[in-house]
Amino acid sequence: MIILGIDPGLATIGFGVISSEKGRATAIDYGVILTPKDAKFQDRLRMIEESLNKLIAKFAPDEIAMEELFFNNNAKTAINVAQARGVILLTCVKHTEKLFEYTPLQIKQALTGYGRADKHQIQAMVTSLLNLKKVPKPDDAADALAVALTHSNTSRFSGGFGIK
Amino acid sequence: MIILGIDPGLATIGFGVISSEKGRATAIDYGVILTPKDAKFQDRLRMIEESLNKLIAKFAPDEIAMEELFFNNNAKTAINVAQARGVILLTCVKHTEKLFEYTPLQIKQALTGYGRADKHQIQAMVTSLLNLKKVPKPDDAADALAVALTHSNTSRFSGGFGIK
Repeated sequence: MIILGIDPGLATIGFGVISSEKGRATAIDYGVILTPKDAKFQDRLRMIEESLNKLIAKFAPDEIAMEELFFNNNAKTAINVAQARGVILLTCVKHTEKLFEYTPLQIKQALTGYGRADKHQIQAMVTSLLNLKKVPKPDDAADALAVALTHSNTSRFSGGFGIK
Repeated sequence: MIILGIDPGLATIGFGVISSEKGRATAIDYGVILTPKDAKFQDRLRMIEESLNKLIAKFAPDEIAMEELFFNNNAKTAINVAQARGVILLTCVKHTEKLFEYTPLQIKQALTGYGRADKHQIQAMVTSLLNLKKVPKPDDAADALAVALTHSNTSRFSGGFGIK
């Protein structure tokens, strides 16, 4: 089964594609979609949709896992990131209904068994679980692999958490 | 020129279609798009895109004006409304690049000359400017007509405010 993990954002959207077979996960690809800060907001939304559609067409994921958005102190940034996330969500659900979301807490618990794990501990687990030679960069790509792995681990037991 | 005004939202999206010729505006249609609270979030985004595409196909607006989103005390609601607004924005910009947004302050000033006008004063101006027999209902539809009228009034002088 191919799982696409997404760390949503506006300027940087992390993605991680893994193959999960009988509980064994391997990395297929990972990276980031970038949108230029000086572009019009509406054009950035179009770029996100277009790049994501290309990724989905290339990897044909069976299931997609996205990190949930949490409230940010900067209201303007939070609103724009949320607008971008709405576009990401709609683009994904047009490809598959098998769309799942996980909170940062669920990701930490799924990968380390510890809800207060820090970024380095999560990245070390991602590197180890996927047998990578080094920590995936940038951070957004590592976060996307983390949510894909969370889904791979969680869905074996519970069927995952659907988006309400 | 046909202007579509939109009051964005998740459960209720107001729309107002006006014709603006030489500074004289007339109402063509107004109302709301509703999404059921018990539907999955991802399905509500799809409903919004589908209903909005039907509206755009029916009225073929030359320009679209949307109310800007302001930060709300309820972070969860604000994030979901912002995600819906991202979908609305992308759907609109696929139809026309002539997409403009106005803050509540700009709308109040454009319609009443007074930045602290209340809802009833705005609705009275919408009713009067469009020569309607009664105040348009529901409130979201009146808000959508207000942003369409703001654009009609503003764009005659300045070309409007583009979305950055």
